[in-house]
Amino acid sequence: MPTNTQVLLKRRPDGEPSESDFEIVTTDLPSLEDGQILTRTIYLSLDPYMRGRMSDARSYAEPTPVGGVMTGGTVSVVEESKNERFKAGDIVVTHTGWQAYAVSDGKGVRTLRPIEGVPISTGVGVLGMPGMTAYVGLKNIGEPKEGETLVVAAASGPVGATVGQIAKIKGCRTVGVAGGPEKCDYAVKEFGFDACLDHRADDFEDQLAAACPDGIDVYWENVAGRVLEAVIPHLNFFSRMPVCGLISQYSMTDLPEGTNKLPLLMRAILTNRTRVQGFIVTDYGSDFKDFITDMTGWVESGQVKFKEHRIKSLENAPGGLLGLLKGDNFGKTLVEVSDDPTI
Amino acid sequence: MPTNTQVLLKRRPDGEPSESDFEIVTTDLPSLEDGQILTRTIYLSLDPYMRGRMSDARSYAEPTPVGGVMTGGTVSVVEESKNERFKAGDIVVTHTGWQAYAVSDGKGVRTLRPIEGVPISTGVGVLGMPGMTAYVGLKNIGEPKEGETLVVAAASGPVGATVGQIAKIKGCRTVGVAGGPEKCDYAVKEFGFDACLDHRADDFEDQLAAACPDGIDVYWENVAGRVLEAVIPHLNFFSRMPVCGLISQYSMTDLPEGTNKLPLLMRAILTNRTRVQGFIVTDYGSDFKDFITDMTGWVESGQVKFKEHRIKSLENAPGGLLGLLKGDNFGKTLVEVSDDPTI
Repeated sequence: MPTNTQVLLKRRPDGEPSESDFEIVTTDLPSLEDGQILTRTIYLSLDPYMRGRMSDARSYAEPTPVGGVMTGGTVSVVEESKNERFKAGDIVVTHTGWQAYAVSDGKGVRTLRPIEGVPISTGVGVLGMPGMTAYVGLKNIGEPKEGETLVVAAASGPVGATVGQIAKIKGCRTVGVAGGPEKCDYAVKEFGFDACLDHRADDFEDQLAAACPDGIDVYWENVAGRVLEAVIPHLNFFSRMPVCGLISQYSMTDLPEGTNKLPLLMRAILTNRTRVQGFIVTDYGSDFKDFITDMTGWVESGQVKFKEHRIKSLENAPGGLLGLLKGDNFGKTLVEVSDDPTI
Repeated sequence: MPTNTQVLLKRRPDGEPSESDFEIVTTDLPSLEDGQILTRTIYLSLDPYMRGRMSDARSYAEPTPVGGVMTGGTVSVVEESKNERFKAGDIVVTHTGWQAYAVSDGKGVRTLRPIEGVPISTGVGVLGMPGMTAYVGLKNIGEPKEGETLVVAAASGPVGATVGQIAKIKGCRTVGVAGGPEKCDYAVKEFGFDACLDHRADDFEDQLAAACPDGIDVYWENVAGRVLEAVIPHLNFFSRMPVCGLISQYSMTDLPEGTNKLPLLMRAILTNRTRVQGFIVTDYGSDFKDFITDMTGWVESGQVKFKEHRIKSLENAPGGLLGLLKGDNFGKTLVEVSDDPTI
């Protein structure tokens, strides 16, 4: 048995997390029992939701325990199997977290069938949780219709980029929001957004108004803060707001002082009959087959593109997550934990 | 032809409206043309939404023009008819506004069939717009289920009382919120709420927590402000919030300074997958037949009760609306404009 490298949650961050909230340890792996598999992590997905798991505030998911392995989706290879569903060499999508190896009973482990010309890392990207998040949130809550305007932040990130591209396929005008001109250019040129605005620009609010001359029918909420506040005055009648994430407020320790904007949102909801609805991808498991069929087709045809932001080595995962929470990533953030046998 | 008395919107209020924003005039009535009817107003309904029509802020409905007759639903009697759908003496529900008489082409006028023992004033109350608002909002957005907890403010008002009683029929625990112990007692004793809390109490937030030991599944939003902020921390997974009104913020001229509570609501929506949705009753016209059937049955069987707050004479309508906006009413507010021929 090889030894394992694991990244543990050392303590719960108060506000902005730091490297010292994590601990990297080396441990022994147990030997396999009947029904178990040993997987080696190839790619670890880094995602904004992980900030939530570091806290013990009430949520839809149990927090990562202090001293526990950081949670996370991975693309892994089966090294050894005592489970009839898997054989050595199988590429799988699993959720074994921030570690080099893992022993599991195979529950929740999905075998990935590699697609010609598409890296297996997409199993935790456009063809995995982030892609499915975009797909089910639009299908069930956003309901984009031909001719409507959709606004999404983090437009170069894995969820935002996919949201914009699906909405484009559905015939929407798509307006992305991203941090900085490089990401904005990329979102327009590669992901086909009709416009993409830099939320750091002094006149961002004016740019948003100009980019949405017919108002906003779908606002995909994944950041909150300044972008949400700029969107509210432009919401159309019967607009929809799937609430997928709130990255700007995850590390907030106190509510901000200043003007109370809650009445502004409530008035917009009432006046426009807007629907604002939170969701998580795991509520829509029954859509998985449709998602894989549609998204695989769109990726193969080039209608949906994706961009990866790769970080080398598990030791750099904490820094990668901290950067992601600050918007330093450019595309789907992955840690290359070990060699990809399909390359 | 008799002369008419009308209440006009003299000017748009800035903030809290006052009597001087209205003007009472006497006018001549035109003679009837073919297809027209002359109606005499018996009861004029006063409702919180009227504050919205006094403003010209963008909304789902056109504002009342300055110099125009204040808008409002009425129970009226047909005095004269040149329209084959109506005959003199018919009791009708119409929307001819704050005036003693009106000439109309009969569009949108509904003949009321009086129910034994039930006053015709219910045509603008529990068997009219407020009752239908409660019915369609619960059916389409609130979706109360057996064993769930519902919270509604203005629990002695015509919408809130009906919301609570329908939710009770559906098997919910119902917690009302009202202004003062008298209204709270009435809501519990007459409308059958499991609890009713005074939102003016110093420890209202603690009382709410104690009254909702299993959290809140449906929050019927008709007031915003302190009640909404107290509800947010208790929202359950998959909770629903029909947004029907925001009476505490209708006369707000600026957003309140202090803590920004918007992140609090957004976090609750995401964490709980809560659905917050604005609506207006006129979006659900196709539910009208079901509403009349169900509600008539419930009123006749005594499962749904109602309380009226009557004001005498059209001249007192402005004061009645101002009082309603401050919560001075106790039950469905009606102006007795002229004699009820069914009594």
